[in-house]
Amino acid sequence: MASNARPEADPLVIFYLVVRRLSEALAAPLSDADATLQPNPEASPAKWHLAHISWFFETFVLRDHVPDYRLFDAAWPFLFNSYYDGEGERHARPRRGMLSRPTLDGILAYRRHVDSAMAAAIPGLPAAVRELVTLGLNHEQQHQELLLTDILAAFAENPLAPAYSTPKPQGRGDAPPLEWIEGRTGIVEIGASNEGFAFDAERPRHRTLLHPHALASRCVTNGEWIEFIADGGYRTCTLWLSDGWAWATGEAASAPLYWRRNEANWQRFGLDGVQPIEPAAPVTHISYYEADAYARWAGARLPTEFEWEAAAVHHDPSSGNQLDDAGAFAPRPAGAGGALRQMFGDVWEWTASAFLPYPGFVPAEGTVGEYNGKFMSGQMVLRGGSCATPRGHLRASYRNFFAPHHRWQFTGLRLARDG
Amino acid sequence: MASNARPEADPLVIFYLVVRRLSEALAAPLSDADATLQPNPEASPAKWHLAHISWFFETFVLRDHVPDYRLFDAAWPFLFNSYYDGEGERHARPRRGMLSRPTLDGILAYRRHVDSAMAAAIPGLPAAVRELVTLGLNHEQQHQELLLTDILAAFAENPLAPAYSTPKPQGRGDAPPLEWIEGRTGIVEIGASNEGFAFDAERPRHRTLLHPHALASRCVTNGEWIEFIADGGYRTCTLWLSDGWAWATGEAASAPLYWRRNEANWQRFGLDGVQPIEPAAPVTHISYYEADAYARWAGARLPTEFEWEAAAVHHDPSSGNQLDDAGAFAPRPAGAGGALRQMFGDVWEWTASAFLPYPGFVPAEGTVGEYNGKFMSGQMVLRGGSCATPRGHLRASYRNFFAPHHRWQFTGLRLARDG
Amino acid sequence: MASNARPEADPLVIFYLVVRRLSEALAAPLSDADATLQPNPEASPAKWHLAHISWFFETFVLRDHVPDYRLFDAAWPFLFNSYYDGEGERHARPRRGMLSRPTLDGILAYRRHVDSAMAAAIPGLPAAVRELVTLGLNHEQQHQELLLTDILAAFAENPLAPAYSTPKPQGRGDAPPLEWIEGRTGIVEIGASNEGFAFDAERPRHRTLLHPHALASRCVTNGEWIEFIADGGYRTCTLWLSDGWAWATGEAASAPLYWRRNEANWQRFGLDGVQPIEPAAPVTHISYYEADAYARWAGARLPTEFEWEAAAVHHDPSSGNQLDDAGAFAPRPAGAGGALRQMFGDVWEWTASAFLPYPGFVPAEGTVGEYNGKFMSGQMVLRGGSCATPRGHLRASYRNFFAPHHRWQFTGLRLARDG
Amino acid sequence: MASNARPEADPLVIFYLVVRRLSEALAAPLSDADATLQPNPEASPAKWHLAHISWFFETFVLRDHVPDYRLFDAAWPFLFNSYYDGEGERHARPRRGMLSRPTLDGILAYRRHVDSAMAAAIPGLPAAVRELVTLGLNHEQQHQELLLTDILAAFAENPLAPAYSTPKPQGRGDAPPLEWIEGRTGIVEIGASNEGFAFDAERPRHRTLLHPHALASRCVTNGEWIEFIADGGYRTCTLWLSDGWAWATGEAASAPLYWRRNEANWQRFGLDGVQPIEPAAPVTHISYYEADAYARWAGARLPTEFEWEAAAVHHDPSSGNQLDDAGAFAPRPAGAGGALRQMFGDVWEWTASAFLPYPGFVPAEGTVGEYNGKFMSGQMVLRGGSCATPRGHLRASYRNFFAPHHRWQFTGLRLARDG
Repeated sequence: MASNARPEADPLVIFYLVVRRLSEALAAPLSDADATLQPNPEASPAKWHLAHISWFFETFVLRDHVPDYRLFDAAWPFLFNSYYDGEGERHARPRRGMLSRPTLDGILAYRRHVDSAMAAAIPGLPAAVRELVTLGLNHEQQHQELLLTDILAAFAENPLAPAYSTPKPQGRGDAPPLEWIEGRTGIVEIGASNEGFAFDAERPRHRTLLHPHALASRCVTNGEWIEFIADGGYRTCTLWLSDGWAWATGEAASAPLYWRRNEANWQRFGLDGVQPIEPAAPVTHISYYEADAYARWAGARLPTEFEWEAAAVHHDPSSGNQLDDAGAFAPRPAGAGGALRQMFGDVWEWTASAFLPYPGFVPAEGTVGEYNGKFMSGQMVLRGGSCATPRGHLRASYRNFFAPHHRWQFTGLRLARDG
Repeated sequence: MASNARPEADPLVIFYLVVRRLSEALAAPLSDADATLQPNPEASPAKWHLAHISWFFETFVLRDHVPDYRLFDAAWPFLFNSYYDGEGERHARPRRGMLSRPTLDGILAYRRHVDSAMAAAIPGLPAAVRELVTLGLNHEQQHQELLLTDILAAFAENPLAPAYSTPKPQGRGDAPPLEWIEGRTGIVEIGASNEGFAFDAERPRHRTLLHPHALASRCVTNGEWIEFIADGGYRTCTLWLSDGWAWATGEAASAPLYWRRNEANWQRFGLDGVQPIEPAAPVTHISYYEADAYARWAGARLPTEFEWEAAAVHHDPSSGNQLDDAGAFAPRPAGAGGALRQMFGDVWEWTASAFLPYPGFVPAEGTVGEYNGKFMSGQMVLRGGSCATPRGHLRASYRNFFAPHHRWQFTGLRLARDG
Repeated sequence: MASNARPEADPLVIFYLVVRRLSEALAAPLSDADATLQPNPEASPAKWHLAHISWFFETFVLRDHVPDYRLFDAAWPFLFNSYYDGEGERHARPRRGMLSRPTLDGILAYRRHVDSAMAAAIPGLPAAVRELVTLGLNHEQQHQELLLTDILAAFAENPLAPAYSTPKPQGRGDAPPLEWIEGRTGIVEIGASNEGFAFDAERPRHRTLLHPHALASRCVTNGEWIEFIADGGYRTCTLWLSDGWAWATGEAASAPLYWRRNEANWQRFGLDGVQPIEPAAPVTHISYYEADAYARWAGARLPTEFEWEAAAVHHDPSSGNQLDDAGAFAPRPAGAGGALRQMFGDVWEWTASAFLPYPGFVPAEGTVGEYNGKFMSGQMVLRGGSCATPRGHLRASYRNFFAPHHRWQFTGLRLARDG
Repeated sequence: MASNARPEADPLVIFYLVVRRLSEALAAPLSDADATLQPNPEASPAKWHLAHISWFFETFVLRDHVPDYRLFDAAWPFLFNSYYDGEGERHARPRRGMLSRPTLDGILAYRRHVDSAMAAAIPGLPAAVRELVTLGLNHEQQHQELLLTDILAAFAENPLAPAYSTPKPQGRGDAPPLEWIEGRTGIVEIGASNEGFAFDAERPRHRTLLHPHALASRCVTNGEWIEFIADGGYRTCTLWLSDGWAWATGEAASAPLYWRRNEANWQRFGLDGVQPIEPAAPVTHISYYEADAYARWAGARLPTEFEWEAAAVHHDPSSGNQLDDAGAFAPRPAGAGGALRQMFGDVWEWTASAFLPYPGFVPAEGTVGEYNGKFMSGQMVLRGGSCATPRGHLRASYRNFFAPHHRWQFTGLRLARDG
């Protein structure tokens, strides 16, 4: 890309600006105080998300590759580095909620400063740095989802139950009956090709061997989960992994996170406040342990991430124009996934696979190489993407991962069984 | 008091309004986000303080004694009850920092609603309820000090070290030399008389027997504390109580709270930001354990609360007009306390006395009876009052109390020795 | 004492041997494995007690004052120092239960080695060192009681409920009715005189001022405690100190330690195994928090340690011949204490007094000065002595102390009230 | 098997008795007190191991399948059930170290009682129950290894460093140079066949796809590990997984467990006491995190469990007569494993594989089905077997598993790399 191109003619600039604007739109309903809240050590304040994703560009692009760039504030990198040890000391993660300063307005000014420099610089950047920009935008998309899950976790702590957004009309009617769809068998190709953007953990593309199996045609629903509860699922230790039972008893877990009983009925707290449970919708806010126990109760199991990907690849939403989708949380096209429904954009689906490197995995070079590899222990893979995942961020090879007890993300499950 | 008196002619109304206005003035430098911060489970957000002290009036005066009073918001008592078990369930103390809502503006509106009802009601209240109002105002004064100590604790967590106020000019020159002032011996009267306001724990007034002793003419200074540090005070276990040594090693304590070393010099973080240590000023932000260890190092001991009160009573600042002083943090008159200096309004002085009931102690009736009595274990008495104590709140009989490891208050010490 | 005196003619040698033999007699029912158990970090294995009290003599008498004495094993002082920081590093207290070696037989050999050297040395020791010997013997008597309370705590962890001793015949009949006995008023002398042995914390003898009050004629009984339970005492938070309520709910406390319900009846586990509750006997194994809550429920309070001592002094069992009593746990003479019953040798009675230094307190010099002074925070005084206290160890000035949540000692209470 | 067969003619009886005798031989060097120690909640006392493995036979064979069998003691199953929820309540795992009673002699009597009944019963048991006996014997072999690792952990807590056994002569000379041995590629068969005994987690045998890779010809040595330490391996966070770094800093880990520095030299504590480090021997007592960090430092990785098994299967020691080997810890035949050395019986080798079910896994029916399946989360697979593994227990398909921070087992590593 020639450096004298008009920035607005560079598709990467446009992609950059679309992604960045979405972050700010997501924060728009929040006050400075809302955006300061950190509900637990694993979640971050909205302000911190907004600043951290700017710090990524400021550090790895502007500071390292743009001569004469001046840091917006030399004291801020200490605050907004997340976990890059290569970048030195940083503010303790569990104390991010103490940052009433900088203000939300100050952080928005930081964003404008970075955006202005980035828009000017992108057209002239060499290809390798443009790839860093793309990485940064995908990184920002991840934080867009976290911003939503984290503000939900924060508002859930407030007895006044504030709503982030207005409720959407609830779906009506029943979930379609669950069908078993035969999966692919034999050697399949798994992982992202070298074309286009993917995180390092999605590569290298490689072959794996699948055994006969079938996948459920849709996710487990709230209505089905209520049956599990009613059948004593949370009180039957033989349904649970040993760690899972310790977790469930330690937490006194008796329903998905954010569920509450109002006399005879179940309600849930969500971004739209307290609402009745919709029986036909996919269950969400469950831990891996709960997903695994449910599957055992149902006489089934969770799919491996490879079974899932092999089925999902034919319905990959990322085949479209990434730019158009960058900012949207559009509803899935009806019937997406053919006989398989709800593969993308409903809930993150827990799989039976631990998050481990693919054969031949090589982390990215330099500090950004800390991106995924160092988290490859103690976590399980989730596939698909949730209602809070930016649509342009969905793809069949995407490997999300969380610890098995985490459930503040929009996590659900799909059943599988041996064929 | 006749109910048709003009409210503004009732001194209690004036006292009420003066106290209430000070609380709001103290919060004026804070943003909504600042006022939401809870730095640790024992400190509370500024917003919470502002609301809680209004809840006290709303509950124990307006709800209970003013017909037709309507609660500002029926959901708020759950949020702003502190520890009155008699008032039912309440929001968990360590989660007060999750209350981005209500907003600071909302809480100020709550205050206006309560103030309007209180100003109208006070002149017509029976004497017993007027006493509750006075209790509530003294309660509010306590929270004024906590509001300051808690915002200091919150800002101390921010690497940007924001200042709440502008720095005052530092004192110059040396501290006066320490003199030993002989204390009163024999039977003395201790505790508040039945005239005027006092907390229940200050009564009944009773006789106690003092043995020969002397008190230091002034508090221990920062300069003296630096000598203690330099002499290895924090590393010499034989200077410490057993619990104190466990605390000091567990915390890796090596200086008062908020002190930091900047190369060769000590600095401290305070409401006025990071400032150099003033050697002649009283040391502050120390635990009882530190005070006790220092006294042992100095070949002295801490005074008992009775020795302290017997000496302080002749210089009691509360003999003046309480109303005039209600809102002021005026500098102490030069030479206050005669040969004894710095008895009131500099630092809370740790004493050698555990916080226990006086002979014949009777807690107040009803829920407000939970005020002090139930905290009479595991705490040590502090006397005097700090730079953050409203001047009208200082008196010789006042018994403040904190756990021996606490040091986020403006706590210091004065030496004593057997006579 | 001339150094050529026959050892057996020295009363201190005889006292020494009597005390030492009792320790071994107390350990006689225990196997090596029993004597290795440490049920919690605050209790110690029986073997450790037996060795530690020998280490005291070996270190402070033999090593320091007897030329040519050879340590039994140079590796053992590291194991059997308790908390004397002046004596250097030591084995971590919570890991004392890992010492299967040395064996119980090895430790008994250690005792014989020390005893032989001590018996030979005592007649020739200077007076100051003879006082150390006396201190060591009183120290050993304290550990005799701890040996019993700690093995009880250990056996209580075993579902097989092993008994240390055979049950004694239970008392019959009812407790005598509770009478209120007027206490002494005005200035009284408190503390041990300079005659005879006393721990440093019992001195100096000094005057204090008592206000009008009355003491219950006997301790609170098991039968009365069952009424407290039945009346919801453990579920009524307004009866409890704030710390006490946190303790009771955190522990789910609903009865004294070692009590268990067998269908409709209460039983208790004791040194004699599981036995029915004896209603007329003093309640024991209660925390300060429970004692305080009971007193509030009963409309009374706990006595101060000074009120207790002023009443007890006329019935002091230590006026007899200490030597005769050194080893005995003899029943109290009927009617001991006149109208006041059960003042000595039944249960340690919680008082309302924090464990703090007396006016003019001076710790002993040297490492043994760590004996009491450094524990003077966070603990409450208990008076009287229990069924597990060697009879020669009882005296009116004795100040026992434990943290307010401790209840593995034989702790009970006597009521008091303002007169 | 006809029920009138002479027991001694039944090979299963012989196998039973050989295994059982070895357990007792392993306990022979221990005193009752030694055998009572529980050094941490995850290790168990030797007495408990000896009793628990007898409880397994008493419960699942004698009680369930042998008419007229009488329990040795009806109170003991509560004590010696490990984790079988289907068998009801049980003694809390972290309190196993409180069982001074039953005595070691009592437990040996329990073993004789069970053995007598088992030897009489085995010949007449139906095939399915004979399989349970075989499972029980393999279970006992697992506990034989744990008995050794747990007594090592217990003795390591004792400052006297007692030795369980006499030291063996140390090896001399250098380790052979590390060679890279090409592994099998393509589809391979993994897992135990249906012939012979295997744990449920080793089945079903199934195909998997291996990518080109090479395995190190031998394990990483102590000498190599010392280089890793010297190169700052424990201080270089970029070598570590994120969880691993948190573990290493939290534990202040700076060497394998049981290593200690004696001035300039490394020593280790082992069953034979404190000994110098042998540079040519395989490193052991390392966590998965350490193994993973070492591999990264060495520019390599850990093998997957499938790569390991595909290479090991040609050298499987279980092809011999299981009976001969049941009790022996015989040295490995020289050159076992061909070019690959130290595949069996040196150290458990951490693999890169999470412990997850094989395709088509079905847990065993009934309570014994809790055997492995419920532990399939949060653990990593180890392969090979250690010096403490009974030789007859070694086989290529064996899947051991521990949490990634565990290192009290004899755990080491072998490097692998992509081919």
